[in-house]
Amino acid sequence: MDFLKIAQARQSCRRYDAARPVEEETLAAILEAVRLAPSACNGQPYHLTVCRGEAAKAVAKATMGMGMNAFAKEAPVLIVLSEQPYNKTAALGAKVKGNDYRSIDIGIAAAYLTAEAAAQGLGTCILGWLDDKKIREICGLEHPVRLVVTLGYPADQPREKKRKTLSELVTYR
Amino acid sequence: MDFLKIAQARQSCRRYDAARPVEEETLAAILEAVRLAPSACNGQPYHLTVCRGEAAKAVAKATMGMGMNAFAKEAPVLIVLSEQPYNKTAALGAKVKGNDYRSIDIGIAAAYLTAEAAAQGLGTCILGWLDDKKIREICGLEHPVRLVVTLGYPADQPREKKRKTLSELVTYR
Repeated sequence: MDFLKIAQARQSCRRYDAARPVEEETLAAILEAVRLAPSACNGQPYHLTVCRGEAAKAVAKATMGMGMNAFAKEAPVLIVLSEQPYNKTAALGAKVKGNDYRSIDIGIAAAYLTAEAAAQGLGTCILGWLDDKKIREICGLEHPVRLVVTLGYPADQPREKKRKTLSELVTYR
Repeated sequence: MDFLKIAQARQSCRRYDAARPVEEETLAAILEAVRLAPSACNGQPYHLTVCRGEAAKAVAKATMGMGMNAFAKEAPVLIVLSEQPYNKTAALGAKVKGNDYRSIDIGIAAAYLTAEAAAQGLGTCILGWLDDKKIREICGLEHPVRLVVTLGYPADQPREKKRKTLSELVTYR
């Protein structure tokens, strides 16, 4: 098994192949990856709304405030990650420790989503700039929207990644 | 590339093979995976402290409050994920949108760490129950500790995963 190749292949995709839809079985694999993601106390405190067609266009528009994310309207699929209430154990831990486990869990879920998409040759971009109220209305969601992930076959070329060096990132004790 | 097999293989490992240390090259691959992880505005707002030997024992003890995580002291390596300041763009976005991108980024980093470990046949457990002050002292860290990940060869057997069903997790629009 090789995760480094997947990590290397995944990049924020901001140009999609409009002529190539996402197959049902590919989408199913991506959703299954999120389903398998770990979370604090196995709380799985998130819900996914898969938007296509008019719903996708409407959600895309709700990520485009102040001139941001114009590319989102070209993606054939948008997946909305919204919160679900904590389970009791995780909520108690978070309160005692002042740690936001739910946001961490939503990050893990987004990583699983985009990793499986990359493994399948699809492009994704994780968007945190969004109009929560508008997307909740479009999707009929009770709880806050945290991320929107655009999904489709990429028209982007692979780019070199810019990252901290290992010596900036890591200390040994 | 197959991420689903990695997602399926990764489970919270709470028993480690004490006789089998983690090889340098395996550890290097795991750290490289975290280095490649995406983050809001490419801020990479985290630092990793790799603890072995006495430092690992001391950090493990600082995750064991109220009888929790006793197994952590058996793991040959503990990796501390602590915060780094946001970059300016991410900080501004987070303020305008009231979204905690840094916790999401730390979740993504933990997902990359544990995915590469699973791909290499190692076990991990992500711990959020920890004594921030004590671990900062041990590791000489200026910024808050958010997660500790235990790492080693597993003595655990694979278990069946308990997760929401796809129909509980996903809605289509």
